Formats: sequence, structure tokens, C-alpha cells
Amino acid sequence: MIDILFKHIQEKVSLSDQDQEAVQSFFSPKKLRKKQYLLQAGDVCKHLTFVSKGLLRTYNVDDKGDEHMSIFGWEGWWISDFNSFLTGEPALFNIDAIEDSELLLISRSDYEALTLAVPIMDRYFRILYQNSLITKERRLMSSITHSAEEKYLLLVESNPQIIARIPQNLIASYLGIAPETLSRIKKNLAFRK
Amino acid sequence: MIDILFKHIQEKVSLSDQDQEAVQSFFSPKKLRKKQYLLQAGDVCKHLTFVSKGLLRTYNVDDKGDEHMSIFGWEGWWISDFNSFLTGEPALFNIDAIEDSELLLISRSDYEALTLAVPIMDRYFRILYQNSLITKERRLMSSITHSAEEKYLLLVESNPQIIARIPQNLIASYLGIAPETLSRIKKNLAFRK
Repeated sequence: MIDILFKHIQEKVSLSDQDQEAVQSFFSPKKLRKKQYLLQAGDVCKHLTFVSKGLLRTYNVDDKGDEHMSIFGWEGWWISDFNSFLTGEPALFNIDAIEDSELLLISRSDYEALTLAVPIMDRYFRILYQNSLITKERRLMSSITHSAEEKYLLLVESNPQIIARIPQNLIASYLGIAPETLSRIKKNLAFRK
Repeated sequence: MIDILFKHIQEKVSLSDQDQEAVQSFFSPKKLRKKQYLLQAGDVCKHLTFVSKGLLRTYNVDDKGDEHMSIFGWEGWWISDFNSFLTGEPALFNIDAIEDSELLLISRSDYEALTLAVPIMDRYFRILYQNSLITKERRLMSSITHSAEEKYLLLVESNPQIIARIPQNLIASYLGIAPETLSRIKKNLAFRK
């Protein structure tokens, strides 16, 4: 389980055996069954979570009770309500499991201790957050400039294996469209092939 | 000029005299007059820019020629088209000066070299990007959940001195509202005091 984390870290920075041991000591494993919550909006997000196996989603629920998907997290992804994790404010997002999942959790204080004990992890997180900033910027621009059909195509092209695992109603919510609109888009695309 | 950068860095991490010398060696100064461009959309953003003095804005222009404000950057802020800087893709944003400005520029390759030469800078940028991710998350949630009036109040409360320096039409654009709507909001707020 920890090997997937090491693999992910070592795509960005090198870890010695000693570093690996230190890194491992800061994480706790956790298993979630499908539909179980990792975090509920209103609670404080106490952990940064690495997904070793499975699939989770973050979403919020508006005043009318409608769910709005924010992001999906699968093997090799970090997931959290980042604002709540860093500031201790109540979380705005819910996180739950779409599939049975295996996770590695690190607390706020251990996250600080980790970067002090293994300084190369500052570099790892620096690169991780760089990528995250770019992804957010692209998603924001995409939401402004692309049609629902274009957004769906971009999503499928970037993550074909994952998209196949996600229920259609959640993909529709992620794209900000009704499930019927997504069905129509998929039918249109199938005809064109 | 470099002192403002050191001050900003040392709010997050400690720099030895030797570190400071090394950091300084990677930056080039640049002055911009009011209305001068730092970056034009379509060009590659070749530098990460620290604002020592003055005020800049990033914005994009849609197909109809309408400007959409993205962010403001003033003393102590970093400004760039971050996606373009990191990936080398053409910039989507323009950056220009709202006031005469003094800047410190670092190139993509020097940015990498800097973090290798002064590893504590990985920590600095890690913390900087953490904060930036939170700001983006908050702004996104605010755009969904707050009225234009609430957004204006939040903006003024968080940065009163800066807001006073920014032309009203740019603030309206940042809030995604017409200048007339902003005037009406300000009048209503003045009445209520």
C-alpha cells in the first residue's frame, strides 16, 4: 500500500531508504467501503489523504440539496478539503468513496513534521501543488470557454480508464450538466464515430 | 528592491546571508511604466515575476473583445501566467501595469536552479502555492455562493489600501459585474453606513 505512495513521490524526487522509513512513519492506513464518508462538510478536515486503491469524490451540497461534484481522486491522487486541512476552518466539501478504497492519512501536525524530517518532501509537495494550480487554472478556463460536449471529450481523453469506473450521474454533475444532457452528448458522439 | 523579496521569503522560511546572496543572483530587475505590458496572451510566459513596487493585473480578452480580470498583483505578490511559465504553452492571460512598477524576474531554468542551489526555497514555494490553492478555492466558492455586493465587501475588507488604488472599471470586471452595478452597490453601502 505504501509502495504506491513511494512510487508517486519518486516520480518527482528521490527518496533514500532512510527517507522512505521516515515518510512511512507519518502515515496511517485506512480502508473505506463504497459509499462510506471520509469527510463531512462542516467537520474539520484533519488529514491529507493519499489514495492507494479505489476511487473517491469531493462534492458540496447547495441550499436546495443539489450535489455539485468538485473532483475525483483515484490511485495515486491526494484528496482533502485543502482549505479546511490547512486553516482548521469547517470543511465546505464532503468526501466519500465511489469504490471500496485503501487510503494513507497524514495529520496536519505530522504533515509539518514530515517536511522538517524529510526536507525533500517540501520539493515533492511544491511540485504537486504547482501541478494542482495548473489543473485548477485549466479547469476554470475550460468551464468558461468549452461547451459541455468539449468538456466531456477532454475528460474522457485525459482519463479514459477512470471515466469508465465513474457512474454517469456523477460525471454529469462534474461537468455541471443534467444526466439527460450527458446521455444526448454521448449518443451524438457515438453517431459521429 | 530585493529587500522586499527577502522580507517576503523570510515571513515563511529563514535565509542565511549566503542563501540571500544566492537567491539574489537568480533574479533580474525590470521597471514597467503604467499601461506597459509584462506579458501578452499568445506569447510564452518566460518569467515568474515578483512585484517589489507598484500594481499589475492579469486578464484575458474573449472573442467579443471583452476583458475579464483575473488577479491583481502588488508589492509582495508574485504574478505570471503560471501554466504557460511551467509548461511553455502560449499564455492565455495578458499582464500589464496599472501603476509604474518595479519587478524582479526569474526565468524557468533559473527557477529550477534556485531550488536546487537553495533547497529551503522549495519550502518557501510549497507554502506560497498552498496559500494560492486556498485563495483559488475560496474565490471559486465565493463566485458560486456570494452576491456581487458580498463579493465587493469581502474584497474591500481583505485589501482596503490596494482597492483604493485600483480603477473602478477594473474592480467591476474582477467581480464579473458592469461598472454601473458596482456604482449602485457602493451607493447602497454608503447609504447604510
